[in-house]
Amino acid sequence: MAELTHMIDSEVFLAFSTYATIVVLKMMLMSPMTGYFRLTKKAFANQEDTSLASSTEDKKKMVRVDPDVERVRRCHQNDLENIIPFVVIGLLYTLTGPDLSTALLHFRVFVVSRLFHTVAYVLPLPQPSRAVAFLTGLVITISMAYRVLITALYL
Amino acid sequence: MAELTHMIDSEVFLAFSTYATIVVLKMMLMSPMTGYFRLTKKAFANQEDTSLASSTEDKKKMVRVDPDVERVRRCHQNDLENIIPFVVIGLLYTLTGPDLSTALLHFRVFVVSRLFHTVAYVLPLPQPSRAVAFLTGLVITISMAYRVLITALYL
Amino acid sequence: MAELTHMIDSEVFLAFSTYATIVVLKMMLMSPMTGYFRLTKKAFANQEDTSLASSTEDKKKMVRVDPDVERVRRCHQNDLENIIPFVVIGLLYTLTGPDLSTALLHFRVFVVSRLFHTVAYVLPLPQPSRAVAFLTGLVITISMAYRVLITALYL
Repeated sequence: MAELTHMIDSEVFLAFSTYATIVVLKMMLMSPMTGYFRLTKKAFANQEDTSLASSTEDKKKMVRVDPDVERVRRCHQNDLENIIPFVVIGLLYTLTGPDLSTALLHFRVFVVSRLFHTVAYVLPLPQPSRAVAFLTGLVITISMAYRVLITALYL
Repeated sequence: MAELTHMIDSEVFLAFSTYATIVVLKMMLMSPMTGYFRLTKKAFANQEDTSLASSTEDKKKMVRVDPDVERVRRCHQNDLENIIPFVVIGLLYTLTGPDLSTALLHFRVFVVSRLFHTVAYVLPLPQPSRAVAFLTGLVITISMAYRVLITALYL
Repeated sequence: MAELTHMIDSEVFLAFSTYATIVVLKMMLMSPMTGYFRLTKKAFANQEDTSLASSTEDKKKMVRVDPDVERVRRCHQNDLENIIPFVVIGLLYTLTGPDLSTALLHFRVFVVSRLFHTVAYVLPLPQPSRAVAFLTGLVITISMAYRVLITALYL
């Protein structure tokens, strides 16, 4: 692997920092979106949360499962399962000293595929929209993992 | 971004390592806590797990959902959704070379907010205790992400 | 902590990169495994997904919960809860400059314990197989966290 002193100020590292931050922020926005749906649908997971929505209505009925809330939560879960591996493997990939253009291609395609994945999940769009978005992100991460393994392999 | 050779021995990096480790350990403790509640409440997710609790009782009835177990699991899930983004963005933030006092403020407020979040969720405390703890952590992570983006932006 | 310039080309860092990539790839393979079970069991989470399996059958009945799908999903969730902390704390541990043999022992035992955990969960094997695999991984991560804290402690 390249010396990190040179890597850390490199354009590849700056690009990784930028795209990783953007896609992690996108993932974090699923929490407020879940909160918004819970408030508007009046569908909460905890008894104590019902006081956030209303002080007069029947609170026991507000601890319930709502299909739209669950859809946003599944989207959030899929982000956790895919964006975190991208960040971990992407950092190691960045440290292998890839070409800037190749690295940018990986980062940009991944971030666009995950933004599209969220749109396809929440609206929802007909399949295979979401499946294609998911698989695109998976292939990008596996491609970066392959470069890490052929560059750094030490078992 | 600053050269990492200087960053890695810096007090900001040591502080990040310390607080990130503490808050990830806290998150990991939710697993044994879930196990404790599953054993004491005799509420398991898998048929084979019931043998861990008892060898004589009716095991089919022990594969069930318990409200207290689910509460701990939701707390754990919220940790995953918030602590992992803090660690990822916090590492990139550390590499931007922030002032030590500003960095410590971010790390300390985040860790305290997440410790309080766990207490507020598990007891539970009345809302908006947990909502305030959650939002505090979110704001801290967004503040660090903002600095990463204005320092490293490379699209 | 040691200077990262020396660390990044070290055998410990190469070993960490290798084992972290392998265990994250293993975690990511749970997604296609979930997809495979959803397709063969015809048990989907979203109405729009049913078109991926069949165009003629009753699609409403295919939005349902299947025990085998849920088992794979719980295994995936347990990976998220344990493998991500290993990667985060393992990176910080690597930067503390541990002995190569000690580091390799940590990485190898962790990866083997998580591979065995997956086998024990999906088949499933009788308990306490899975519990032992889980606890082994937890102890490894706590051992690395301990070294990070005694080396880098800065509160």
